[in-house]
Amino acid sequence: GDVEAGRAKAQACAVCHGPLGLSTAPDAPNLAGQPELYLAAQLRAYRSGARKHEVMGVMAKPLSDEDIANLAAWFAAIRVEAQPPN
Amino acid sequence: GDVEAGRAKAQACAVCHGPLGLSTAPDAPNLAGQPELYLAAQLRAYRSGARKHEVMGVMAKPLSDEDIANLAAWFAAIRVEAQPPN
Repeated sequence: GDVEAGRAKAQACAVCHGPLGLSTAPDAPNLAGQPELYLAAQLRAYRSGARKHEVMGVMAKPLSDEDIANLAAWFAAIRVEAQPPN
Repeated sequence: GDVEAGRAKAQACAVCHGPLGLSTAPDAPNLAGQPELYLAAQLRAYRSGARKHEVMGVMAKPLSDEDIANLAAWFAAIRVEAQPPN
């Protein structure tokens, strides 16, 4: 997918998933650095209804395969680091 | 949940989700720093079958509510930072 196109498309996602894919809502996951394959599979599942969520079903419905590839590429490209809890 | 108990319980998860919750498999998500509520909800969904995945259904089946709370507390406690792709 195209990272820049995904970044633009992802502006709609930022309200719950944050501008850099770190969640801003207790029931929304971080998307930053998620594996591209995993992200695309979840978006397809929300689009088809195989995976159900009130908001995500609505968000995913209009996405094209290209949108999904671009969004997955964008969030996967965000670099994440993890440290143990102190 | 109890972070240390969750850390111990999470050793089984590390093979796909990594020792610090950064995925080691293309089809497995990062769990590091995910919101506690979200993680617990997904584990319950895998346990009940509301969310389906071949491996996760098996992994979640034997988990008690306490296990789920501890696992969610552990992964949520891992500190993550995100940088834009360079």
